[in-house]
Formats: sequence, structure tokens, C-alpha cells
Amino acid sequence: MATTPYFPPLFAEDFGAFTPTVLSVATALAATAAVRDKAGGTALAERQLLRDSGLLTLAVPQAFGGQGAAWPLIFRMVRRLAQADSSLAHLFGFQQLQVASVLLFGSPAQQDRWLGATVGQNWFWGNAVNARDTRLQVTRTEGGWLLDGIKAFCSGAQDSDVLNVSVATGPEPKDRLYLVLPTGRTGIQVNADWDNMGQRQTDSGTVEFRQVFAADHEVLGPPGAASSPRATLRNTIGQTILTEIYLGNAQGALIEAIDYTRTQAQPWVMAGVDRSVEDPLLQLRTGEMWATLRAAVALAEEANTAFQQAWEQGLDLNETQRGEVGMLVAAARTTAARAALQITSQIFELMGARATTARYGFDRYWRNVRVHTLHDPLDYRSKEMGRWLFTAEPPNPYGYG
Amino acid sequence: MATTPYFPPLFAEDFGAFTPTVLSVATALAATAAVRDKAGGTALAERQLLRDSGLLTLAVPQAFGGQGAAWPLIFRMVRRLAQADSSLAHLFGFQQLQVASVLLFGSPAQQDRWLGATVGQNWFWGNAVNARDTRLQVTRTEGGWLLDGIKAFCSGAQDSDVLNVSVATGPEPKDRLYLVLPTGRTGIQVNADWDNMGQRQTDSGTVEFRQVFAADHEVLGPPGAASSPRATLRNTIGQTILTEIYLGNAQGALIEAIDYTRTQAQPWVMAGVDRSVEDPLLQLRTGEMWATLRAAVALAEEANTAFQQAWEQGLDLNETQRGEVGMLVAAARTTAARAALQITSQIFELMGARATTARYGFDRYWRNVRVHTLHDPLDYRSKEMGRWLFTAEPPNPYGYG
Amino acid sequence: MATTPYFPPLFAEDFGAFTPTVLSVATALAATAAVRDKAGGTALAERQLLRDSGLLTLAVPQAFGGQGAAWPLIFRMVRRLAQADSSLAHLFGFQQLQVASVLLFGSPAQQDRWLGATVGQNWFWGNAVNARDTRLQVTRTEGGWLLDGIKAFCSGAQDSDVLNVSVATGPEPKDRLYLVLPTGRTGIQVNADWDNMGQRQTDSGTVEFRQVFAADHEVLGPPGAASSPRATLRNTIGQTILTEIYLGNAQGALIEAIDYTRTQAQPWVMAGVDRSVEDPLLQLRTGEMWATLRAAVALAEEANTAFQQAWEQGLDLNETQRGEVGMLVAAARTTAARAALQITSQIFELMGARATTARYGFDRYWRNVRVHTLHDPLDYRSKEMGRWLFTAEPPNPYGYG
Amino acid sequence: MATTPYFPPLFAEDFGAFTPTVLSVATALAATAAVRDKAGGTALAERQLLRDSGLLTLAVPQAFGGQGAAWPLIFRMVRRLAQADSSLAHLFGFQQLQVASVLLFGSPAQQDRWLGATVGQNWFWGNAVNARDTRLQVTRTEGGWLLDGIKAFCSGAQDSDVLNVSVATGPEPKDRLYLVLPTGRTGIQVNADWDNMGQRQTDSGTVEFRQVFAADHEVLGPPGAASSPRATLRNTIGQTILTEIYLGNAQGALIEAIDYTRTQAQPWVMAGVDRSVEDPLLQLRTGEMWATLRAAVALAEEANTAFQQAWEQGLDLNETQRGEVGMLVAAARTTAARAALQITSQIFELMGARATTARYGFDRYWRNVRVHTLHDPLDYRSKEMGRWLFTAEPPNPYGYG
Repeated sequence: MATTPYFPPLFAEDFGAFTPTVLSVATALAATAAVRDKAGGTALAERQLLRDSGLLTLAVPQAFGGQGAAWPLIFRMVRRLAQADSSLAHLFGFQQLQVASVLLFGSPAQQDRWLGATVGQNWFWGNAVNARDTRLQVTRTEGGWLLDGIKAFCSGAQDSDVLNVSVATGPEPKDRLYLVLPTGRTGIQVNADWDNMGQRQTDSGTVEFRQVFAADHEVLGPPGAASSPRATLRNTIGQTILTEIYLGNAQGALIEAIDYTRTQAQPWVMAGVDRSVEDPLLQLRTGEMWATLRAAVALAEEANTAFQQAWEQGLDLNETQRGEVGMLVAAARTTAARAALQITSQIFELMGARATTARYGFDRYWRNVRVHTLHDPLDYRSKEMGRWLFTAEPPNPYGYG
Repeated sequence: MATTPYFPPLFAEDFGAFTPTVLSVATALAATAAVRDKAGGTALAERQLLRDSGLLTLAVPQAFGGQGAAWPLIFRMVRRLAQADSSLAHLFGFQQLQVASVLLFGSPAQQDRWLGATVGQNWFWGNAVNARDTRLQVTRTEGGWLLDGIKAFCSGAQDSDVLNVSVATGPEPKDRLYLVLPTGRTGIQVNADWDNMGQRQTDSGTVEFRQVFAADHEVLGPPGAASSPRATLRNTIGQTILTEIYLGNAQGALIEAIDYTRTQAQPWVMAGVDRSVEDPLLQLRTGEMWATLRAAVALAEEANTAFQQAWEQGLDLNETQRGEVGMLVAAARTTAARAALQITSQIFELMGARATTARYGFDRYWRNVRVHTLHDPLDYRSKEMGRWLFTAEPPNPYGYG
Repeated sequence: MATTPYFPPLFAEDFGAFTPTVLSVATALAATAAVRDKAGGTALAERQLLRDSGLLTLAVPQAFGGQGAAWPLIFRMVRRLAQADSSLAHLFGFQQLQVASVLLFGSPAQQDRWLGATVGQNWFWGNAVNARDTRLQVTRTEGGWLLDGIKAFCSGAQDSDVLNVSVATGPEPKDRLYLVLPTGRTGIQVNADWDNMGQRQTDSGTVEFRQVFAADHEVLGPPGAASSPRATLRNTIGQTILTEIYLGNAQGALIEAIDYTRTQAQPWVMAGVDRSVEDPLLQLRTGEMWATLRAAVALAEEANTAFQQAWEQGLDLNETQRGEVGMLVAAARTTAARAALQITSQIFELMGARATTARYGFDRYWRNVRVHTLHDPLDYRSKEMGRWLFTAEPPNPYGYG
Repeated sequence: MATTPYFPPLFAEDFGAFTPTVLSVATALAATAAVRDKAGGTALAERQLLRDSGLLTLAVPQAFGGQGAAWPLIFRMVRRLAQADSSLAHLFGFQQLQVASVLLFGSPAQQDRWLGATVGQNWFWGNAVNARDTRLQVTRTEGGWLLDGIKAFCSGAQDSDVLNVSVATGPEPKDRLYLVLPTGRTGIQVNADWDNMGQRQTDSGTVEFRQVFAADHEVLGPPGAASSPRATLRNTIGQTILTEIYLGNAQGALIEAIDYTRTQAQPWVMAGVDRSVEDPLLQLRTGEMWATLRAAVALAEEANTAFQQAWEQGLDLNETQRGEVGMLVAAARTTAARAALQITSQIFELMGARATTARYGFDRYWRNVRVHTLHDPLDYRSKEMGRWLFTAEPPNPYGYG
């Protein structure tokens, strides 16, 4: 809208020193997002764009050569990138999550080694950690472990340099091993078998392991995965990335719809107005959607701030504090999910029938949100919050907490 | 579920003497609906299936050799077919709508000629009547009219035998001509340019007219399009077909989700149950969705019954009565739309993440409903109802009534 | 609205031959409903009005001198009376329910005796049957039983002639006795202790029993309470009366709000209209509410029709059929409850701040619905529907079915 | 819950140095809120409690002897007090609003005089400023104005020391006079005629003016009411107080319901649990409500922070910035209103039928919110937001901005 001297700020665009980089990456991703959504598959060029941006080391502390960005800033970037391209934002967010795993579970030496390499060799991390898929088996062998089987939902494994892999040696949380393996390790095969209705370029397909050897020193720890309330913050980061992806999609959808209404929509004949933007019912619905989304964003920001405080507590973080943060993160996620599901569907009522042509690909926002909101059941998050309020019993922080 | 001696009847399956035909056609369509949704384009084989079923003449009175089925029965069939295949149900419904146009607008001789041919030559009707698209122009010529220009959203024009075409000769409803033209008429070109996010096999692309001659006797009338309250029932039929397509998609989605939950879904680990069907939260949501949909169906049935009474009034139907039926049809449509948008999105929360694989194509229900609910703005339907309740002023029955 | 030649028919007003009586009673009740809501207590004059109307014998078969009205008609009257006065509609509905108890549980001789007296002496029935209140105890004595204790929620016991009383002799449904006792029986004391936020004139307080003797022949049966699927239809009637009371309150609220908007509301300054009824946003909301309510009414009517068919099956009714009717009744109840809770709260947004003055008492609609929707948890109704859809297992028809 | 070592923090309870005072006042108010809701009328003792608390001078800058509290803190106190007693919280909030009026509209000398007296004589301010009520007329007289007529909705005028009065001398915002008059001024009569369904002790009745003289120096200004974007922040404060009252009621309702469920509710027989707090459906609903409310609170806090920044801009605040704050405040208000309407109605579904007894008065939360949300139409707030997003046109900041 070159003729508009002022455009209301729908959502914050401030990422501190990283602002130019984030906006530039977002703009580049947005330009081809609709086309790539149709194509699916691995977005090699866009993954390279992320590599080149320097943003893969955001979560790596400065002590290891990284940027040591605060989590609320990282999460806000996930949101902004998801506004442009939900799949690549997912990969960007999961990169930071794998880095966090090393920080939370790894020994000082492991952190030094793998986070140093993340910076030095600009590693892109993938994962094979899905806990619900129990087909990956492990047996003890001399000096390490032998992995055999398959994992599904291995986002980002394609074109990755290194993988976070989890496997259970027994039924308890403490029996779960987290390993760090180069993606090129003998016996690892990343399959290009992700063909989904949404999040189509997250490469969340399967990874097969055929007698893959993992040395003891490749197992994260000590302290290891279930070592403390702090260590369970890994799941909290994972949940927050989901939240931010919902919010980003909703922002993208709403901005797109407002822009379309301003520039392309025909006024409805019964509205008695010259331009769609003067239609009182469209104004009403747009205002409702914006308020809904702003509330969800505000709660996410509050949860992110609380998360950062918990992160900075280090090993002093106790179960009660961890529970409180977890519940706030859960509230943010369910709220964001409901808002995003509604808004990404409702935007079409601003734009009208002509906006449904496949060329625009405007349905991808809803498809992305719909797929991602199923990561684990939202209703069980709500139920957990209720139980906590009723009984003061914090949720189980393992597995899906 | 071969082992279940009794399965609750989610929705009625009774179509009188047509029951075997309808269920057989529906089953055949359902088998390939997901695959054809991906492919898009014209469903030639499935259109032939409809031709062979004998159902194309349902709305043709027995006096012309047709089956003279009551409208509530026809509408229920649209719903049932949409449960199986939303695009083909659309084409099926619009076939009956074009027949109704001849009955409502045409002279006795025209009815005899074109409805006789519909039966005798098993015509599949298409249309090019979109009133918002004003690019089709008409000029008077000796013995008739010359059409030149283009129309969008011409559902069913592909592979059709005959077209309903509308064009405005002036600004008033009475200035609108409805013509019946063979699709093969010189100068008519049906373009295969429909590529949409939903309703992908409705062939709702453009039709071009290059100096197409239409003889005076090919203009429907007298009485013609805006001749009486009765004549405006054409739009009411159009609105009801929309309603039924929403309901059918919602039924299809809910049945599919219940079936998947019974047979394929893994129980959620925090649910503490052995099978997903025992999960109290999934039971809750399923019950909620079913009740929501049953209410929408019940209102549609009530509106359909009221429509049939109005239809049977013939020319005695006055504006007040027409308004009352119109408002009930509007209430049914907005209710069905809201229910279907919600349910076709929410079903995934029963099935979980694995149900989002592209292979299932379960997102097509939402995409179909989302596209079709934009035919004309739902909120303006609600507003019209409110105005009517406040002021006793019936809605404008032309254009989009 | 004397100046309006035509007023849209919001809701049906046809009660066959009873139409003048029903409308006359409703009008009389409506005139003082707001004032009596504030006063609470027993509505002696209005109870007398019901007695005088002849409507207390509607459910009594003609064979016993009653009117033998079909249930859908009776239920529609509950709805219409609740539109005028929710408390009195409750008493009216429960009168029919107690009559039904005699028909379903009682022996031919008992039916003859008590239904004959209902007609002959124009009995108003009350009840003390609440199953959750286990404080009423019973012991065997010569020729009958001795009752001792207290029951809460005894709607209509005040000013009644006769009471339905239930008491458990053991843990199973078949162990529950239903007794018919004159309200004046020695040892029975009806307490005027109902002071609630809604349904304020239903006299739903406590009844105390001090060594009250009940003869064997005062126990309903054979066949008795849990004797067959048919017998459990008593609960279905109870559930349906709840549904109709919700719908009636919602109708009353919406009609009142539309009328107020037409006659008293000031247009909002930002709406740019001369009269509130021209306000596009108010029109939208009114249309939305009306459609929501019409859908709930349509589903209730469908359920009522299905109920009548089940009733007419007599002892042939099997568990599957009973389950299907029960589920449809449950869907109607949850739908009506959600619609009524929303509408009775939302009406104020049409009328504005001045409509909140205590004098109007417009909040009573919401208070009545809110209280009554808690009879048993709505969410467990929804859950039961879901379980039925998933597992084909009909709900437990006893207790609260 | 003495036996619970840890109770989840539903909502923040931190008011800095004022924490003990605020919590002590809130506790005292809560103890009698239900009883006083029934009684209505003027809460003299509780008004005295507020006077004695020292909290009436919170908004008075320290330069005038006040406490100069930041607005976000004041607003949070409104919320916390409304959790205890919605009417008194209203009076507390409006006290600060009248102080703000003097700060925004008054000359330095007027500020010194009236804010000094507010501190020195512990004034409780009332108002008679309702702009929609045009019955108060003004005529010019020697050295001042003569007021004659009546104003409705004069919250807090009863038992007040001084009044803010507004009256229009012409059609434009700049024609509106704001006056400061002692409540005891000859000719002013405060009527005890507030009898409403909610906010029952806000004394929002009428004030009559019979030839009341107001001297020129009692007219606020210069700069006066419509003097700058900054001056219009008065309305923003008014809107925010509404928001906080909604949130406080919702918090009070939810806390009460959770407490009741923990201590008094009987488990539902079909839930299969020993205690209501273990009921999965109640947990679900409680979690949903809490998340909804936390999001509304988070957005309110964000808006409050933005408001404080605007406040601190002083006269530099421009129309665009004022518009942005106004829109955020509007989003917070509509979000809080929708959340509070829903939660204050839904809590009963946790507690069950026994919680509806009049003694508890739990319906007062909904009644308070319902009344207060009608201050000006929420939908027009949403519409304004939409217009702003579409056209970059800020809302009209006068009257109801």
C-alpha cells in the first residue's frame, strides 16, 4: 500500500540486533512459500538460506562461540518466520531445540564439543526422538550401543549434519538415552517419505537405523535426560515452538487477508459500500480476529518470559516452579492453537470465494496449524491444567510435558 | 467393524425407492474421492455413473417422463452424495437446479421441449449464470441475441449437454435473461481452468462466448426469471443445495473420524485407556460434534419441508410466504455452514497426528466446506434474518436470495 | 406492535385444539412473571390457573377420562409456557411426568385409581424422587413400608395433592420403590425452603418424612420402575421437559429483546442509523441467535417425534431402540442448553445498558436456564453420546438416563 | 485449604508496597459481598474502608501529596478488588478516573487545589458525566454557568465529597464542559434510585441539578477536555477500568468455583471418581477456563503497559500513538468481556446444582459482568479495530473512545 503513510502495527517486528536478518530471511521465505507448499519435499535452498543467515547458532551460548540469544527472542523469531513459512520456521525452531538438548542433558565436554562444532561447522541439526514410536530398539555392545529399527516424525533429518536420537532402554524416563550422531553414520538412512496435508517441507518422515553403532560418549550425559527439573525444560521448549508456529501462521493468514481485502476484494453487493474495507461486518470480524490473536500472543510472551526466568534458575529450579512454567506454557499453547485454528479458517470470510483459487494457497495456513496442533492432544493439556488447579499436582514433565 | 452386531445410526439413510441406487452411487464415489480430490479436473467416469444411475431426471415431473421426486428427498440425496464426494454431489444438485429453472422460468412449451429432452437424451446440465460476473455482454440481433464475453464459476459446464446461461440486459432483476443453449453451440468454449483449494472436481471454471447466437425461443419465458415470488424459488433451491453439501461433508468427516478412531487410532498415553474409543475426552468431543450436526440436519429438514410447501403453492405463493421460507432456508444454511466448518476441522482431534498423512486426504472435507461456504457471505444471511425479525421486511429474493 | 401489519413468526404457536387455552394461560403467566421471580415462594394463584385450565390431565389417557394428548404436543406446551414463566412451565411439565410414572410403572388397577382421581379431583402432583439424595430411608413394616428422612429438590410438592416418592431398598435400579402418597399423609412435611438464583417458583425445596407409612398397594407396580426398556422412558420424559424449558426461556428472551429493540432501544451513536432496528451489527447478532435457536428447536421436535414412536411401541420397545431415542433426546438437551445459555446472556447486547434495570427482570431467563441446565452434567450427556457412537453401547437408562 | 502445602497461583497477587493494604481491603470486602449484593444500596461502611485504606489518592502525583502510583498497578488493583467486590472496585477505579480528569483537563492551579484537597480532606469523588444522557442543560450566567436537569448512571455520587460533572454547550467535543462541584452544592440532589440486576452497590443512579451555579473557575481548563490527544486518555482509563472489572469478576468466579469443587462438590455418579477434583471432564473445563482468562489478563497487562507509555509521553503523544493505544485497550476490553461472560456463566458446571442456592450468590459474577459489558457496545469496539486495521484510520477518541 504505497499510498498509505501509516499502517497499523498488527504485530511486533522487533528482534533487536537481529531485526534486519530476521526480516530479510522472512521476506525471502514468504516469496516462495505457497509454491513450495504445493511441491513438498526438502527445501534445500531455503535450508541453505537459514545456514547462511547465521541464525542456526542463536541458542548456542557465547562461551561456545554462539550468540547466546534469550529464549523469548528466539521464540519470537520462530513466530515471525512461521508467518512467512511454517515449515522452515519449524526447522529453525527445532535447530534451537536440539542445541538446548545438548545444554540440558550433555556434560560440559559434550557441550564444548558439539556446540563448538555447531558454530564452527555451521551444523544443521535434525532429530529422531519421537517417544511414541517404539520401533527403534537398542542393545548393549562393547563401548556403546547398537541401534536397530525405525523412527517416524523425524523433522529436519533430511539434509542435516547431525541428529538427536532418543531410544528407551527401559520403561522409566531415566531409561531413555539421548544420543548425538552424525547423520552420515553408517547404517542411518533418512527416508524422503513425508507427504502430509500440512507442514509439508519439514521433512518429518522416517529414519531407519540398521545396526548403527553409538559410542558411550555419544550418549548425552551426565547429567542426562531425566536428571532434574531443569533437564525437563527441553519439552517446554518443544511445546513453545509449537505455540509460536501456530501464532505465526495465524499472523500470516490475518495479514494476508487484510491485505487482500484492502487491495483485491470486491465489496459485497448487499453491503452498500464502495470498498470492502468499509464493510461493517468485515470490519467487525477483522477486529474480533485481531483481538483474539493479540491475546494469544500476549499470553505466549508472558509464558516465554516465565520460561526464561526458569531457564536462568539453572539447577535451582524445583518441581513446583517447573510445574508453574509448564502450566503457563500449556495455557499459551492451547490458547494459540484455538486462535490459530479459528483465524486460519475464518480469513476466507474476509476475502470471499475468489481467494480460494489454488494459486494463492491460502489454505496452507489452516493445514499447517491443523497438522501441528495434533503433536499431542490439546485437550489433555487443558485437563492437566485443571488437575493442577484442583490438586496442586504438577504435570508429568517427561515424555510430552 | 464386522464384529459389531449393531452400529448406531449416525444419520438417516432412507431415500425411499431410490435407496439402493443412492447408496450404490455413493459407495462408488466414496471409493475414489480422495484420489480424485488430489487429481482435480473433470470426473468423466463419475459423471457417467450419475448419468447411468437415472438420477439426473429426479426433478423432472412425471408429466415430462421424469421421476417427479419431492424436493426434500432430492436435497437429502445431495447430502448423502456429498458425504461420499462433495464435487459430484454439487454437480448432481446443480443438475436438479437447472431443471428447476426451466420449470420456474420457462413456458409450457419450453418445459415440454427441454425437460423432455433431459429425459429422452439423458442430458447433463451445466451453467453459466453467475450474476456477480458482469463480463458477459449481450446485444440484440435479428430473431435473438448475440452473447460475447466470459463467465466464471460455471459449475458443471465441462462434459455437459446443455447450459443454463444468464446475462443482464439492464440493471433490474427483470432485465436478466436466462437462456438454454446446447453446450456445443458455435462460439461457446468451456475452459478447463478450475484449480481450487476445494470442490476440485466441480469444473467451476470459465466459459467463453464469442458472438454466440441465442434465438428468442431459447430465452426462458414467459413467465421468465423475475416474474413472481414463485420464480424466485430458484435461488432458494440453490441455497439449499449449498446447505446440503455442507451437511454431507460434515457427515462424511465425522463418520470417517469415528471409524478411524474405532479401528486405527492409538490411545493417548495420558488417557489411561486401552483403546481410543474409551477415552473420555474423545467421547465428549464426538458427542458434541454429533449433537451439533444433528441439530443442523434437523433444521435443514424443517426448511426443506417448508420449501416443498412453498413449491406446491405454485403461483399463489406470496411475498410474505416466500420470505418466511427464505429465512428458514437462510437459517439452515448458516447453521449448517458453522457446524460443518467446525466439525471438518475438529475431526483430526479424534484421530491424531497420523491421520494427517496426504494419503488419506481427510482435509478435503474442510477444504470443500470452506470453499463452498463462500458462495455468498454467511454474515449477510444472518444480517438479513435479523432485519426481517426487526422490521418484517423480507429479503431481496433476487440475485442471491 | 399494532402498527405492524405483519410480524415474522419467530416460533410456532400452534397447539391444535388447545391453542386458545395455552396462549391464554401463557399470557396470564407472562404478565406477572418478572414480579413473581423477585418474590419467589409458591405461586398459588398461578397454580390455580393451571388447575382451572384443564391442562393438568393432558397426559392422562382418554380411557381414564383424560385428554390423551401426544407427547410432542405436551412438550411444545412446556416450551411455550416456559417462554412466559419458566417456573410454572416446570410445574406443568412435572405434572405430566408424574402421570407418566403411573402409566409406566403402575398396575392397571393403580392407573385406574390414581389417574381417575387425577381427572376427577383435578390433582396437582408433586414429587420427592431425587435419586442422588439418599437421606430418605425405608424399612419394612407390616403391610407396607415406613419412610423416614428427607429429600431435596422436591419440585411442586408445595400445594400439591399427591406425591411421587422414590426410595431405594438396595443398590440396584430394581431395588428402587416408587410410591404414590397423598401430600397430606401423616408425617409428611413440605418445607418452604427453596430460595435459589433461578426457577424461583418451582418450590423445589425439601420434604421431610417422619415415620410415614406407605401401604404395599401404594408402591407402583407391577410392572414397577425398572421393569423394561419402556419403563425407563420416564427419565426420557424428564430430560425432554428440561430441554423444552431451556428452549422456552430462550424464546422468551429473544422475543423480549427483539420487542425492546423495536420499541425502546436508542440507536448507538457510532452506528449511524436512526433506529436500532437498522443497526447492521444488531441485525447480524439477532439473525445469528434466531438461527441457533431454530436449530435447537428443530432437533427437539425431531427427538420428540422419535420419543412418541418409542412410547407407542409399548413393551415391544427394545434396548437398542430405547438407546437411540435416549441419544437423540440427549443431543436435543445439550443443544438446547448451549443455545439457551448463550441467547439468554447475549440478548442484553441488543438492548443495551438501560435494559439491565431490576424492574425488567430480564436476567431471569439466564438464571432459570443456568439453574436448570445443572440438573445433571451436560458434558456427561455428550460423553455418553460419544461412547455410544464409538462402541454401540447404549447409556445406562436408569437413574439419570 | 490449610492442608495444602502448595496452591497453584491462579493469578498474580503482587501490588508492590501496597500488597498488604490491597489484600486486606479485598478480604474485608469479599466477606460481605454476596450479602450486600442482595441488599443493594449504598455501601457506606465499605466506602469508609476505602477511605481509610489510603488508596483513594493512588493516582494523585506525589507533588500534590499523593502516591503517584503507575497506572498498570492501579489497574491491577481494580482487578483484584473486583475479584472480591465488583461494585466497590468500580467506585475505587472511578475515584482514580476523576483524579485523572483533573490531571488531564485541569490547569496547574486547579490540579493543585483539587488534588491537594483530595489528599488533605481524603475526598471520595463521584461523577455525573454520562455523555449519552442529554437532559442536563446549561446556560451562561454572570461569572459562570447555571446547570439544570438530570443525569443518569452517576456512579459513586452517593456519599461523595465532590463530583465531576459534564455538560455540552454545543455539538462538538470541544463544546463539552467538565466541572468540579462539591456534592453538597445548593441545588444538587443525588437520588438513591439505582436498582439494577448487577453492579448493585455502585450507586449509579440519577443526580438532579436545579439551577446549580458553577463558577468559571470550576470548569476544568485550560487545557480542557478536548484539548489534545493526551486529554482524550481519560476515556482510555475509563475503558481500562471496565476491562479490569470484567477480569476481576472472572477471577473471583473461577477461584470460588475451584474452591467449591475442592471442598464441597459431590463427584458425579457417572464420572467413576471418588472426588470431583479427579473428574476428567471437570479438569478439562477448568483448564480451558483458566487458559482463556490468563490470555485475557496477559493482553490487559500489555495494554496497560502501553497506556503508561502513552501517559508518560505527555503532550507529545500524537494521534497515531493515541490510536494504537486505544486499539490495544479496545482489544483487551472485548477479550476480557468475552472471557468473563463465558467463565462467570460456566463455573456452575463445575459446582453443580447445589451451588445455585441464593445464599451463595454465585450468579452475581455473571450479573456484574453482564451489566458492565454494556457500557458501550462491544461489537462497535471490534468494528473500530477492524476499520483501523483496514484503513489506518484511528477511532474517534471523544465520547466513548
